[in-house]
Amino acid sequence: MLARNAEEITRRAGRPIRIVAVADKNVELAKQVTGGACRVTDDAFSVVADPEVDIVVELIGGYGVAKELVLKAIANGKHVVTANKALLATHGNEIFKAAQDKGVMVAFEAAVAGGIPIIKAVREGLTANRIEWIAGIINGTTNFILSEMRDKGLSFDTVLKEAQRLGYAEADPTFDIEGVDAAHKITILSALAFGIPMQFDKAHVEGNLQTGCSRYQIRRTTGLSHQAAGYHQAYRRRRRAARASDADSSKRLIANVEGAMNAVLVQGDAVGATLYYGKGAGAEPTASAVIADLVDVTRMHTSDPENRVPHLAFQPDAMADLKILPMDDVTTSYYLRLRVQDKPGVLADITRILADEQISIEAVIQKEPGEGEDQTDLIMLTHQTREKRIVAAIAKIEALGVVAGKVTKLRMEELGK
Amino acid sequence: MLARNAEEITRRAGRPIRIVAVADKNVELAKQVTGGACRVTDDAFSVVADPEVDIVVELIGGYGVAKELVLKAIANGKHVVTANKALLATHGNEIFKAAQDKGVMVAFEAAVAGGIPIIKAVREGLTANRIEWIAGIINGTTNFILSEMRDKGLSFDTVLKEAQRLGYAEADPTFDIEGVDAAHKITILSALAFGIPMQFDKAHVEGNLQTGCSRYQIRRTTGLSHQAAGYHQAYRRRRRAARASDADSSKRLIANVEGAMNAVLVQGDAVGATLYYGKGAGAEPTASAVIADLVDVTRMHTSDPENRVPHLAFQPDAMADLKILPMDDVTTSYYLRLRVQDKPGVLADITRILADEQISIEAVIQKEPGEGEDQTDLIMLTHQTREKRIVAAIAKIEALGVVAGKVTKLRMEELGK
Repeated sequence: MLARNAEEITRRAGRPIRIVAVADKNVELAKQVTGGACRVTDDAFSVVADPEVDIVVELIGGYGVAKELVLKAIANGKHVVTANKALLATHGNEIFKAAQDKGVMVAFEAAVAGGIPIIKAVREGLTANRIEWIAGIINGTTNFILSEMRDKGLSFDTVLKEAQRLGYAEADPTFDIEGVDAAHKITILSALAFGIPMQFDKAHVEGNLQTGCSRYQIRRTTGLSHQAAGYHQAYRRRRRAARASDADSSKRLIANVEGAMNAVLVQGDAVGATLYYGKGAGAEPTASAVIADLVDVTRMHTSDPENRVPHLAFQPDAMADLKILPMDDVTTSYYLRLRVQDKPGVLADITRILADEQISIEAVIQKEPGEGEDQTDLIMLTHQTREKRIVAAIAKIEALGVVAGKVTKLRMEELGK
Repeated sequence: MLARNAEEITRRAGRPIRIVAVADKNVELAKQVTGGACRVTDDAFSVVADPEVDIVVELIGGYGVAKELVLKAIANGKHVVTANKALLATHGNEIFKAAQDKGVMVAFEAAVAGGIPIIKAVREGLTANRIEWIAGIINGTTNFILSEMRDKGLSFDTVLKEAQRLGYAEADPTFDIEGVDAAHKITILSALAFGIPMQFDKAHVEGNLQTGCSRYQIRRTTGLSHQAAGYHQAYRRRRRAARASDADSSKRLIANVEGAMNAVLVQGDAVGATLYYGKGAGAEPTASAVIADLVDVTRMHTSDPENRVPHLAFQPDAMADLKILPMDDVTTSYYLRLRVQDKPGVLADITRILADEQISIEAVIQKEPGEGEDQTDLIMLTHQTREKRIVAAIAKIEALGVVAGKVTKLRMEELGK
């Protein structure tokens, strides 16, 4: 992309951006791709030590060698551009501190939501706002899987295989499926939005794609998929009521985010709800974000470090100690689906358990069992309650002995409330 | 907002932003609002000459005194933040040249799409991309009117009055209704996206709200309202085919932009389609954008002017001379609606005229006339053709003497083609 769009990039940046060296384990492939335009090596540490190099682009991933390389690059006085959300969510505080001390920049637009310039929007575009909440569909892999399961009526396993074939899911899809990837991203967005340090250890990580629950059901009620979403609920301490019409409109939009696309919704006290939508992954969108960072860093290269945009939007000496709400204390309404035995008293037992936990019910739908079946589906919508209570109630319901398998639980977050 | 969110803004900017002086014709009101916190005057020229002032915020509008004040502020070495799209679209080249020569910044996030940080996204977030096209709903007044006409079945005049009562439309709504406001905005976006100077004189300005055509019809076919949109079609010279799935998904999103909301869709060769959505107008969203600019300018205040982000995204000595396509040469398909006499031969006459202009028809719907009526509605969808041909054909059709009133013509732009 740097070669293909060299002319446009140079016209914007005011100078060309030149690749000095590339490090790759597969030296032959890298030589082929770069066509002799730069030094190619399998020793990444030689690149971060190269006096010719001003900016190091780290696209390895993970917390191991990537962390060592990034810290070494910073120690050598080089700016860093990275797409590594896992590294930043878990070691970001250490990395930004090192960069701050050394007067270099660490840019990471590609770490969240691929090519959508969401980091820039939150960090620089909404600086006038007290940001109230941030939500979104930030894992394209699981959104693709949910879209396909619904549209084609296929099973989770079948769609996962298809996603792997298409390159939308890794060979080991754990991070995506279990919600770890989304939690990394929401950790980064929360830091930028609320002016808090990275706190991945306090993020709630959850994936429940395997329930086979189609997203359609979640959409009808809230328009927002929290499956495999990862929670970071600092915002709950500061949110205010937004106008319902805004939230309705935003819901309609986010309900139309299909396949591998991403969308992030940010509520500011001044601007109201703003939404950012685009491709969340892939080589080209990621490169788009990486190069946008390269151009930014190139421009700010000679500027006084004190006047640069702070890494996490807020000045490092002005971080807030906003408490992150434990998942147990999160309040929302719930969608529950249970496969139950079709016999008298079952519904009474279940509603008694919910009542004991002070959970009030908004609606119940009990389907007629099929011909010759002795089981049926029971769907319940609750009013607002605490996560702790619903978890306790579900444990008791599952212990009743009349429910087949696990209770499916989906949170019905109300945007803008 | 500067007072209300002073703490958050200071934590981001790294220093407080202080209002030194306010100029308003209504001095008493301004004194009341500012509560003695700063100097209040009715002489705006005294503010732009004040040695205490680093940044001038121009929120007057129009091309008259606003232009004089902005140029004077620049001449006095002050940075300028403005929300004035009319001024920039028509005199931007002169203003940016003056700022460039003087080494000051002119920031204008609030000029397009209210609180949505779309200027920043296009100027800095997508620098890696060759931008192929840009489209959107950027006039909240007309979008509100269309939404209300459709949802409530009210006439244009009734809804306009309601819009004026709610403050969504000016007492003199000409600029919004006639498409001038949208054309100002698309002129600015085109300059940023394509690296061309401001060329408002070449923008196609059109408003056709009064036809009473509900947007629903446009949406069903293309998902995009071009009513009162204002055209700037430089992009047609450089667009490429985007993947249909992206375009479909974007269409669904933009079709859900209701009321006074704005949305801008940007297609880059690397990132694909990205969409930005939020409130397009109003005091708070506008202030959100103005203050984001203030924070940016405050940060870059001491930086080397050569390394700042260029006003129009591209370096001033690297502007392209991309030709803007005259409206006559724009190619698209069309939706036509005609009120015609219900008698034999009418459809044959009309299709003959279209054939003579080499316009091929995709579909025709002719409604049964109502009981006792001798007129009926004829709806036609054409294949791709040039604007020049459709305009010529419509003139001939209207001259036939069998059409009541004017032919309603809507462009059916295909996004991503």
